[in-house]
Amino acid sequence: MTIKIFTMGGTIDKIYFDDLSTYEVGEPQVAEILREARVHLDCEVEEVIRKDSLHMTEKDRLLLRRRIEANPRRRVLVTHGTDTMVETARYLENLGDKVIVLTGSLTPARFKKSDAPFNVGCAIGALQALEPGVYIAMSGRVLPADKVAKNREAGRFEEAPGTTER
Amino acid sequence: MTIKIFTMGGTIDKIYFDDLSTYEVGEPQVAEILREARVHLDCEVEEVIRKDSLHMTEKDRLLLRRRIEANPRRRVLVTHGTDTMVETARYLENLGDKVIVLTGSLTPARFKKSDAPFNVGCAIGALQALEPGVYIAMSGRVLPADKVAKNREAGRFEEAPGTTER
Amino acid sequence: MTIKIFTMGGTIDKIYFDDLSTYEVGEPQVAEILREARVHLDCEVEEVIRKDSLHMTEKDRLLLRRRIEANPRRRVLVTHGTDTMVETARYLENLGDKVIVLTGSLTPARFKKSDAPFNVGCAIGALQALEPGVYIAMSGRVLPADKVAKNREAGRFEEAPGTTER
Amino acid sequence: MTIKIFTMGGTIDKIYFDDLSTYEVGEPQVAEILREARVHLDCEVEEVIRKDSLHMTEKDRLLLRRRIEANPRRRVLVTHGTDTMVETARYLENLGDKVIVLTGSLTPARFKKSDAPFNVGCAIGALQALEPGVYIAMSGRVLPADKVAKNREAGRFEEAPGTTER
Repeated sequence: MTIKIFTMGGTIDKIYFDDLSTYEVGEPQVAEILREARVHLDCEVEEVIRKDSLHMTEKDRLLLRRRIEANPRRRVLVTHGTDTMVETARYLENLGDKVIVLTGSLTPARFKKSDAPFNVGCAIGALQALEPGVYIAMSGRVLPADKVAKNREAGRFEEAPGTTER
Repeated sequence: MTIKIFTMGGTIDKIYFDDLSTYEVGEPQVAEILREARVHLDCEVEEVIRKDSLHMTEKDRLLLRRRIEANPRRRVLVTHGTDTMVETARYLENLGDKVIVLTGSLTPARFKKSDAPFNVGCAIGALQALEPGVYIAMSGRVLPADKVAKNREAGRFEEAPGTTER
Repeated sequence: MTIKIFTMGGTIDKIYFDDLSTYEVGEPQVAEILREARVHLDCEVEEVIRKDSLHMTEKDRLLLRRRIEANPRRRVLVTHGTDTMVETARYLENLGDKVIVLTGSLTPARFKKSDAPFNVGCAIGALQALEPGVYIAMSGRVLPADKVAKNREAGRFEEAPGTTER
Repeated sequence: MTIKIFTMGGTIDKIYFDDLSTYEVGEPQVAEILREARVHLDCEVEEVIRKDSLHMTEKDRLLLRRRIEANPRRRVLVTHGTDTMVETARYLENLGDKVIVLTGSLTPARFKKSDAPFNVGCAIGALQALEPGVYIAMSGRVLPADKVAKNREAGRFEEAPGTTER
């Protein structure tokens, strides 16, 4: 089984230079996370864009959709900023028999305490068991793109109001 | 959705005292991992035993099986030492509609570089999507108990010889 | 022996909220660093200000100088942002028999890889052995305030041009 | 200024393989600690032995003493196990104008929470300011070899009974 990974930037990849610099999006961290977790899956990592998700445009989302469509792999992981992860997930619906899981982190992967390794693990675990569709794996939940929302105040992803839990 | 977590000890929970002490199994680390990952799932953690898995006996496995059977939750996570994880997994088969995932780590969770947060994430992600059965989530793979083996030399879990990949 | 610690903010204390927030100066990290290092010295920690050192004014430096002067302890550690650490150090000269060491970090203490614990250790070690005066402990060097400069391009503190090494 | 570093093994360098292995002394960690702290001092690292300090013999101590004597550097750091660090320190007395500081850690450097980076920093900071002699830098204290003891129950180094604090 081969998993295709597309990276879009976001908090998970943020770095820190020094007092004079702003806090920027750096190299994708997913490969380092997989190495540290001693993962023995075939994973192909490809950087699409390197942006804070607040600055993501429809053009960026279209680019991602086309890359997924053009790629032969059925199981796709996308690392992405959290603020517009739900919008991007919905933008990726109806891609045939693809299983697509989006994840990211609320705290940069380079921090001592980060949700990044757990979240990537959660996405990879779900990806191997889910039916075709688009999902978000955050806060320990794996939810379909049309049933998930970010609760910014609480700092978590949860079921969107109006949807019912399985 | 509520996930029931049983802890059995193993490398994931190992601690270090000092030069004079041996390296021992300490408090279950799974709750700390879930906290650091900012997980918002209902998880009930229960310690069953605290042992290096090499010292696990059939009695210990029977105890675990009975606890799972007696518990009303359908989705069950077991943290366990790696050396006999496969034996324990097979011992837990045929428990009706339960979805049981075993995980652990090759390096203690208290180390800077550990596979523990990723592995627990992987197990939690898979648990929400899998059909009833018993599985092991290690090395980034989620494999049925009857199709997985630990390759000790390579330091990983992989498909057991004679089984074919999906 | 009691060591008095004044905290001024800076990179060492920086935290990260989320994509929408800026990167801010948080709680002083020095107490956590001392705890993790299992330090058994009497240390009294007092927060003076919580600022990026680029925004520090002469008023802030005067406040720090007066706090040091008013405090009975002879050995003083100051945690501070790196960009104007040298200016502050020079502002603290001629305070009688006080031994004052400034330190901070190039990477926030909350990162997995940070110079913060080493730097605080270096300052505490030097503080116990130095003659009265004002010093900076950064990049593994302990240098008098009038002989040190930040080399921003190289990302380190070094002897100021025109001074000769012991 | 050049600092000569001799490594002797001990808890600071301990690694963990897996359930079947014992907990062993691995590669010296001091170079990695200096790199992570972005130290810009000339440091020459040389491994002498790789032992748990409980197994250190007089022959090992004589070897270390001869290496220090034969080396032209005046400032010497020794990383060492904690259980017999005091014995080794006393064995290194009367080496002319050498400044020798021993350090190590109570928790392996590879752990998330370890006293190792702070302790090495403390030793390096003290080394630049101390008068000739042999010292131990542990628990945040820098104490002469003849005035320090390990309090194993409390898990710290402190002034030996019968000595008075400066």
